[in-house]
Amino acid sequence: MQPLLVCLQDNDSLAATLETAVGASRATLERRQFPDGETYLRFDTDLQDRHVIVYSTLDRPDRKILPLLFTAMAARDLGAASIGLVSPYLAYMRQDERFRSGEAVTSVHFAKLLSDHIDWLVTVDPHLHRHKSLSEIFDVPAIAVHAAPLIADWIQQSVESPLLIGPDEESKQWVAAVAKEAHAPFAVLNKTRHGDRKVEVSVPDIGQWQGCTPILVDDIISTGQTMIKTIAHLAGAGMQPPLCVGVHGVFAGDAFHDLMKAGAGSIVTTNTIAHQSNAIDVSELLANAIRELLVNS
Amino acid sequence: MQPLLVCLQDNDSLAATLETAVGASRATLERRQFPDGETYLRFDTDLQDRHVIVYSTLDRPDRKILPLLFTAMAARDLGAASIGLVSPYLAYMRQDERFRSGEAVTSVHFAKLLSDHIDWLVTVDPHLHRHKSLSEIFDVPAIAVHAAPLIADWIQQSVESPLLIGPDEESKQWVAAVAKEAHAPFAVLNKTRHGDRKVEVSVPDIGQWQGCTPILVDDIISTGQTMIKTIAHLAGAGMQPPLCVGVHGVFAGDAFHDLMKAGAGSIVTTNTIAHQSNAIDVSELLANAIRELLVNS
Repeated sequence: MQPLLVCLQDNDSLAATLETAVGASRATLERRQFPDGETYLRFDTDLQDRHVIVYSTLDRPDRKILPLLFTAMAARDLGAASIGLVSPYLAYMRQDERFRSGEAVTSVHFAKLLSDHIDWLVTVDPHLHRHKSLSEIFDVPAIAVHAAPLIADWIQQSVESPLLIGPDEESKQWVAAVAKEAHAPFAVLNKTRHGDRKVEVSVPDIGQWQGCTPILVDDIISTGQTMIKTIAHLAGAGMQPPLCVGVHGVFAGDAFHDLMKAGAGSIVTTNTIAHQSNAIDVSELLANAIRELLVNS
Repeated sequence: MQPLLVCLQDNDSLAATLETAVGASRATLERRQFPDGETYLRFDTDLQDRHVIVYSTLDRPDRKILPLLFTAMAARDLGAASIGLVSPYLAYMRQDERFRSGEAVTSVHFAKLLSDHIDWLVTVDPHLHRHKSLSEIFDVPAIAVHAAPLIADWIQQSVESPLLIGPDEESKQWVAAVAKEAHAPFAVLNKTRHGDRKVEVSVPDIGQWQGCTPILVDDIISTGQTMIKTIAHLAGAGMQPPLCVGVHGVFAGDAFHDLMKAGAGSIVTTNTIAHQSNAIDVSELLANAIRELLVNS
């Protein structure tokens, strides 16, 4: 029997594409809030012995988690053969260590909460830093797919004379890799410190890049502050307004408009979080991973 | 060593009273939201080998659950000897059965989520209906204390010539019990059906209650619609504006003002959910139950 896809976001076009790509049919989930703020959920599809794929991207996670856990628990209760979770954007990856005593290591707790109620997970570029892989924190099979090749392809096809920009030495490796796949040059900003507070930023060999479109790439655009600072540095160095590319367009508060106002030439994201800036489709990456996990379910 | 109380509501006076009543000291929990909506939590108190009491009343539960679960998980991770939960108002007690096929039985799922991360629970008058006791859905020791005697005391001390009103036959037993403890009379409204849609409501023996203050009592005041209808019936029968008493003042949306506008003489609740209508203190009931559970922790 076909797997069933349950989508917890209304009208999500990535979910619709995935449904076709993995040959799933859509489970109907009736969902509403009672006046007192509690959530009501009802499947209008028989789940007995079916492989269920729950789709929920996890930006703004605090208000999404209870409906998501209820959905997984109810699916189990209603006889689902297996329950997988597709979260194109996975939350709570940043607090991956106790930086100060007494801190909740929320990356571990969040992964545990999910692991307790699902059988597998697929996500796109989780913000892995101190955890080297998802298997360190998830007790169930978890696949992280990578958008860098898609971003490189998109740059190659859509941008005339691209120049990838690394905002600092730390970003060099990642920026260099995307640049290589896009067959594009890259430059890493030079920071020279003058005393405690004054930092001068320059673009090395700026002369040779005058006709190029600078491109900033990051995994998450949240407040956009990192990119906003880099845009100012590029303007100061006489470069054109850059193209800003993010895997995940979280855009906290007014970040999208702040970034445009700060001088972004344009902003492009993948469709892991539905947003007007979505231009790069990750569905094929996700579908391949889902198929692999379904075979073993 | 003294138990530690962690309060997840700011400036909750019931939490402060409980702290003193059970001889606990307050654990400091630093708490904030990142711009992207994720929650940061940090204990500024050493929890190693301490008995931890987490205080979180659970009206509007969807946005409270993740911080609550993180708090419990972090406390465990930080070496707490035991973790108890005091939720004066417990959420998700109404969906206690699958009324239609495919429904999530959220009372069971919610209790399971909590049970997985705490060692005991105390609450006030949970809305038990088909579940006969909390132990049917909680895997950990759970005590439900009852506010009826406190409400009866309050009525006896504060209301001249009270008359308890049961809105229908179903409520008779509960209303009769409170009336008995308050040494007050009670009346149950008569509903006479004329055809499919017309229902006539009357107060039996209305003549003898003209000088009395009618009192409506319910466990939860959520939208207030049940009380609003009863107020109209009483007015139609020529009674004074009633006093409305709720154990839990959830007051969904504008329910408090709607109820006043509909003609409530006044509205009184216990302090299980902080609100201007709070007049009856449940702290001693809760403190007794907490002490009992701490002894066995």
